[in-house]
Amino acid sequence: MLSVEEARASVMDRIERLEPYRVDLLDSLGCVLAADIVSDIAVSPFDNSAMDGYAVRAADTSGATDAAPVVLRVVDHIAAGRVSSVLVGEGEAARIMTGAPVPAGADSIVMVEHTVSLDNAGSTGGTVAIGCPAVAGDHVRLAGEDVRVGETVLRAGEVVNAASVGLMAALGCAQVDVYRRPRVAIVSTGDELVGITDAPGPGQIRNSNSYSLAAQVLAAGGEPHMLGVARDNEADTRALLSRAPEFDIMVTTGGVSMGDFDVVKDVLEQIGVLDFWKVAMRPGAPQTYGTVGGTPFFGLPGNPTSTMVGFELFVRPAIRKMRGFGELDRPRVSARLAEDVKKKSDRRYFLRGVISRVAGVADADVDAPSVAPAYEARLSGRQSSAMLTAMHRANCLISLPEGLSEVAAGTIVTCIRLDEEEGTP
Amino acid sequence: MLSVEEARASVMDRIERLEPYRVDLLDSLGCVLAADIVSDIAVSPFDNSAMDGYAVRAADTSGATDAAPVVLRVVDHIAAGRVSSVLVGEGEAARIMTGAPVPAGADSIVMVEHTVSLDNAGSTGGTVAIGCPAVAGDHVRLAGEDVRVGETVLRAGEVVNAASVGLMAALGCAQVDVYRRPRVAIVSTGDELVGITDAPGPGQIRNSNSYSLAAQVLAAGGEPHMLGVARDNEADTRALLSRAPEFDIMVTTGGVSMGDFDVVKDVLEQIGVLDFWKVAMRPGAPQTYGTVGGTPFFGLPGNPTSTMVGFELFVRPAIRKMRGFGELDRPRVSARLAEDVKKKSDRRYFLRGVISRVAGVADADVDAPSVAPAYEARLSGRQSSAMLTAMHRANCLISLPEGLSEVAAGTIVTCIRLDEEEGTP
Repeated sequence: MLSVEEARASVMDRIERLEPYRVDLLDSLGCVLAADIVSDIAVSPFDNSAMDGYAVRAADTSGATDAAPVVLRVVDHIAAGRVSSVLVGEGEAARIMTGAPVPAGADSIVMVEHTVSLDNAGSTGGTVAIGCPAVAGDHVRLAGEDVRVGETVLRAGEVVNAASVGLMAALGCAQVDVYRRPRVAIVSTGDELVGITDAPGPGQIRNSNSYSLAAQVLAAGGEPHMLGVARDNEADTRALLSRAPEFDIMVTTGGVSMGDFDVVKDVLEQIGVLDFWKVAMRPGAPQTYGTVGGTPFFGLPGNPTSTMVGFELFVRPAIRKMRGFGELDRPRVSARLAEDVKKKSDRRYFLRGVISRVAGVADADVDAPSVAPAYEARLSGRQSSAMLTAMHRANCLISLPEGLSEVAAGTIVTCIRLDEEEGTP
Repeated sequence: MLSVEEARASVMDRIERLEPYRVDLLDSLGCVLAADIVSDIAVSPFDNSAMDGYAVRAADTSGATDAAPVVLRVVDHIAAGRVSSVLVGEGEAARIMTGAPVPAGADSIVMVEHTVSLDNAGSTGGTVAIGCPAVAGDHVRLAGEDVRVGETVLRAGEVVNAASVGLMAALGCAQVDVYRRPRVAIVSTGDELVGITDAPGPGQIRNSNSYSLAAQVLAAGGEPHMLGVARDNEADTRALLSRAPEFDIMVTTGGVSMGDFDVVKDVLEQIGVLDFWKVAMRPGAPQTYGTVGGTPFFGLPGNPTSTMVGFELFVRPAIRKMRGFGELDRPRVSARLAEDVKKKSDRRYFLRGVISRVAGVADADVDAPSVAPAYEARLSGRQSSAMLTAMHRANCLISLPEGLSEVAAGTIVTCIRLDEEEGTP
C-alpha cells in the first residue's frame, strides 16, 4: 500500500495547470491571474482635490486664523469631471469639489469646513474667508500617487479579490486572463443505485455520491458534470469511462474494492492507464488513480464518507493546481484530542471531527506541535465510512498517523480545517 | 456623528431575512436552510454488508482458524442491489458484496480476506473455508444506523455544506428551501466617471467602484446589478435611485459629502427616508443610510477604499442577514501592531493591513486581548482613501478605536480578517 504522501505526490506530479482563458472582469473574482496587469495610465491620472473646499496658493493663507481670516477672490468653481482653464493667481482661490483637477497656480486645498463663505463665495466673482493656513500639498492627491504609468499593478499567479477587480476596472481591463476552471466528470457505479427522485426498492439506495462530489467540485472552483450511474458490468462502465477525454478530470465512486463486480480497475486497464489502487488510509483505502486518454482519472471508493475524504485529499488539490493556485491544501491546525481513539496501526486515519477554540490558551503552530494548542478536537459522530451524518457535522478531519494503534485523549493531533479557505497567514 | 456600532445597529435593526425559495439541490450549497429536513426513510434502508465477503451465522464459525477452517456451503451470491430469497441455514454461507442486503439467517459477515475459496466458492453450490471466527454483527451495517425514519437530519438555519448535499440526496430532496440571495442594485455617481472600456478624458476617471462593489456583493453571496452612473444632478440621480424598489438593496457611491453637487442626500429625502449620514470612522465618514419604497439604501462615499470599507462594515452584514446567516461578521483576531500610527481621536480607523503569524506565540482570544497575540499586523501601503493598492494588498482591516490620537508599535489591536470565511471556531 502507498502512503498518503506517496499517493498524493504521484497524483500531483502529473497534474498540469490548465491553459489561461479570457473572462469578463467580474468572472475573474477568486481565480488566479495568468498574466501581469501593467498600467498604461497613472492613477490618479491628474492632481486632484481630496476634499470639497477651495484651491489656493498656500503662501496667500499664511497666518490666517478664524479671528483674522485671509479673504480671497473666487475665480472659478470646479466640479469633478471638469478641467479649469483659470490660473489661480495671488489673492485668488477656486471653489473645488472632491476629485476635481487642481487648477494651475494653486498648490493646496483648504477644506470647506475651514472657510467662511462671504459674498457669494461658492461662485466665481465672490469672496471667501480662509480661517487657517494651508501648507503646500494639503489635500492634493498627486497624479500617479496610487499607480504609475507602466507599473505592474497585479502579478500573474495572484488570486483576484474584490479590490483587484476595482483596480483592474480603473485600469480599463474589461476582460482578464485567468487559469481555466476544470470540467470535472462525475460517475457513480453500482447496480444498487437509483436516482435521487426515485423511491429505492428493496436492496436499493439513492445515488447520493454524485451530489456530494458535485458540491465538493463546486466548492473547489471546478465545474461539475454528472454523467450518471455506470452499472456493475464492463460494457456500461466502459461506455461512461471512455468519455473521460471530454473533460479535464474524471471522478468515479465505487467499483474499486474486492468485490466480484468491481470492474472499474479492469476497465481502466483496458482503456487507459492504472497507476495505483490502494492507499494506507481509512476511510477509503481503495483509491484508484490513472488516466484515460490523458485525462486524470480518480476512482474513489463507494462509501459516502470514503468518497468525500478521498476527494479532499486527492481531487481537491488537483483541481486547485489546475486552476493555478500556489496553495493547494486546506489550513491545518494543531488541537488537543478530547477522547481516546483506537485505530489500525498500518493506516493513516482521517476522523470526522469538530474543533473548537479553547480561549486564552497558547496556539500551536502546526510545525511546532509541542506547544499547547488553542483548539480541542472531538469526534463529530460515529465513524463508519457509510455514515454521512458525522461528515455533515464535521468542521475538520482529524489526521492520526500510521504506527499508532491507539491515541489517548490529550494527545496533540493535526486537524485539516474543512471550514476555512486558503491564504490564512 | 454616530459611532460605528450605533450606525450598524440602526441599519441591522431594519434588515429582514428574505423569504425562502426553492432551489435545485446543488444550488443550495453555501445557502441557509429555511426548513428542517426530516427523513421519511432509514439510512441505510436495510441491514447490509460493509465488506465484500461471506454472510454467515456466527455460531457456525466458532473456533475457526487458518489451520483448521470451518467449511460452509455457499447457498447464494448476492450483489449490491439484489435481495436474496435464500435463508442461510446451519453450515451455510452466502457470498455477498459491499452494500448488498444481508440475507435472512445470517448475522455477520466474514471478509473475503479471511476466507479460502474452495470448490467453486464464489458461486451457489460451492464451498468456502472460513479462517477466523465471526462475532454476531461483524461488518453488518444496521438499517437506520445513520438516519432513522422521522429523524430531523438537517435543521432550518444551518448552512449547507457538501456533506449536507449528499445527505439530502440520500433522502430524496431534489429541491430544497433556502433563504433567497438579495438582488443588489449598484449605482455610481459623478460627472467625472467614464465606463471601464472608455479612455478617460481630461479630469475624468473610470467607474471602478461599481466593479469593486459588484465583486464584494458576489463574494457576500448577493446578486449584483450594475445600474450605471448617475450624473451630479437631481433629475439623473432621482431617475436611478427611484429604481430601488425593484431590488432588495440599493448601494450608491459618491455624492454624499460636502460638495455642492452631492445630491444623493437631497434626492433620498425627496423620494425616500434618510436615516443618518455621518459615522465617526475613517475612511468613509459620510455613510448615508435610508430606505426608498421600503428598500434599504446605502449611500457609500465615493473614494474607492471608503466605498469598500463601508461595504464591509454595513452592506455585507446586511446581505448575510437577508440570506439567513446567524454569523454576520468576519472573524476578528488580535495582533501586535508593527508600526506607530497617528490618527484623529474622534474617529474609529480601519487601516488596510497585512497580518502574519508569529510562530509559537500565544494566540490571544479577541475577547482577552491582554494575551500576547500570535499575529503581527502592519500597514499594507499608503492609507489614502483614494488609493486601492493598499486595499488590494490587505488581508485585514486594522481597527483602531476612538479616543486615541496615536497608537504605538507593539499595541495589541483588533484586526478584521478579509481572507477568511465565517464559522471558524
